[in-house]
Amino acid sequence: MNGKPVWLKASGKPWVRGEGRPIYDNPWISLTEYQAIAPTGRPALYGLVSFKNAAIAVLPLHDDGTVTLVGQHRLPHGGYSWEIPEGGAPAAEDPLDAAKRELAEETGLEAAEWRELMRVQLSNSITDERAIGYLALELSEAGGAHEADETEALALARVPFREALEAALAGHMPDVLTVAMLLRAYHMAREGHLAPALARAMLG
Amino acid sequence: MNGKPVWLKASGKPWVRGEGRPIYDNPWISLTEYQAIAPTGRPALYGLVSFKNAAIAVLPLHDDGTVTLVGQHRLPHGGYSWEIPEGGAPAAEDPLDAAKRELAEETGLEAAEWRELMRVQLSNSITDERAIGYLALELSEAGGAHEADETEALALARVPFREALEAALAGHMPDVLTVAMLLRAYHMAREGHLAPALARAMLG
Repeated sequence: MNGKPVWLKASGKPWVRGEGRPIYDNPWISLTEYQAIAPTGRPALYGLVSFKNAAIAVLPLHDDGTVTLVGQHRLPHGGYSWEIPEGGAPAAEDPLDAAKRELAEETGLEAAEWRELMRVQLSNSITDERAIGYLALELSEAGGAHEADETEALALARVPFREALEAALAGHMPDVLTVAMLLRAYHMAREGHLAPALARAMLG
Repeated sequence: MNGKPVWLKASGKPWVRGEGRPIYDNPWISLTEYQAIAPTGRPALYGLVSFKNAAIAVLPLHDDGTVTLVGQHRLPHGGYSWEIPEGGAPAAEDPLDAAKRELAEETGLEAAEWRELMRVQLSNSITDERAIGYLALELSEAGGAHEADETEALALARVPFREALEAALAGHMPDVLTVAMLLRAYHMAREGHLAPALARAMLG
């Protein structure tokens, strides 16, 4: 594709936020209720959740076609969740530096090659949360003990790429960034965007 | 893969929610602050955003390998967003019924074949929002005018699948469900999970 397709143009009026009433604030989010005006002209009370960190997701892909995954209990859904390593980047932190930090903290790994795979919006009708996903290649042990967050108790697993992808598609790893990043790596392997030996090891 | 891989097991203690203080409530979300205890034993004040609807995403894939996309202004990120058709399913509504309703309301289309492609969690450290994604096949005009939501002003585009996928991967369609669903359809086309003529039309 050369450039941006013409159908991606904007039309109509934007939302008007209007006056905002601060409702809640903690170190991760704030909530503000706006007296908004919809593109149709209709008034709408709009509760917007603003995120202080960008979500950072790292797919650690080893030369042998395996990936390292992280297991942890999550409060909101009340269950145990296997995912790719994820964390948060405050506005002042470079997202790639945050990715390197999270990978080391959660898995003890460091990567010689990094590729940005996606910048996405996670829930764009209610929150302004955005996520940046990286592929981490040429992995080795970082040396030194991991230093996880003081509320995190993490398990680790290193499994074949295809087994991880199939588990995600079967619904066993419902975190959307994990699903999207594994599918993105599959696409890269299939389209010749990864080293041939690595792609062969992944696709089996 | 036969059954659930053994590495998907849970370990360690779950989060304890503790006492909750209601902070905010509107027709779409509520916010509660819990006196939680982390798996590490550490107390943590936890602001949880609960969603009243499940997010519903529909990828309308035509027999000729094109997809129908929807354009609209979104308030939280302040920009114009091209996406696959999406909406919300209240707890009392069957998600597939909601998908059929949203597809008809937003695009005027109906589908003779539906496949559930994913059930995912969108932001699992802060919200309990979940999303269900469907592939809509054998599409035709539903007849009758669309009836969009009274705050929605929607544009439509019908474009080749590969052009939509490339626009998403280039960052022009950052909605994560749009990215994940297009990648999922690519995976199905590549793995022989779609009719051969349709897969050829998509991958062209």
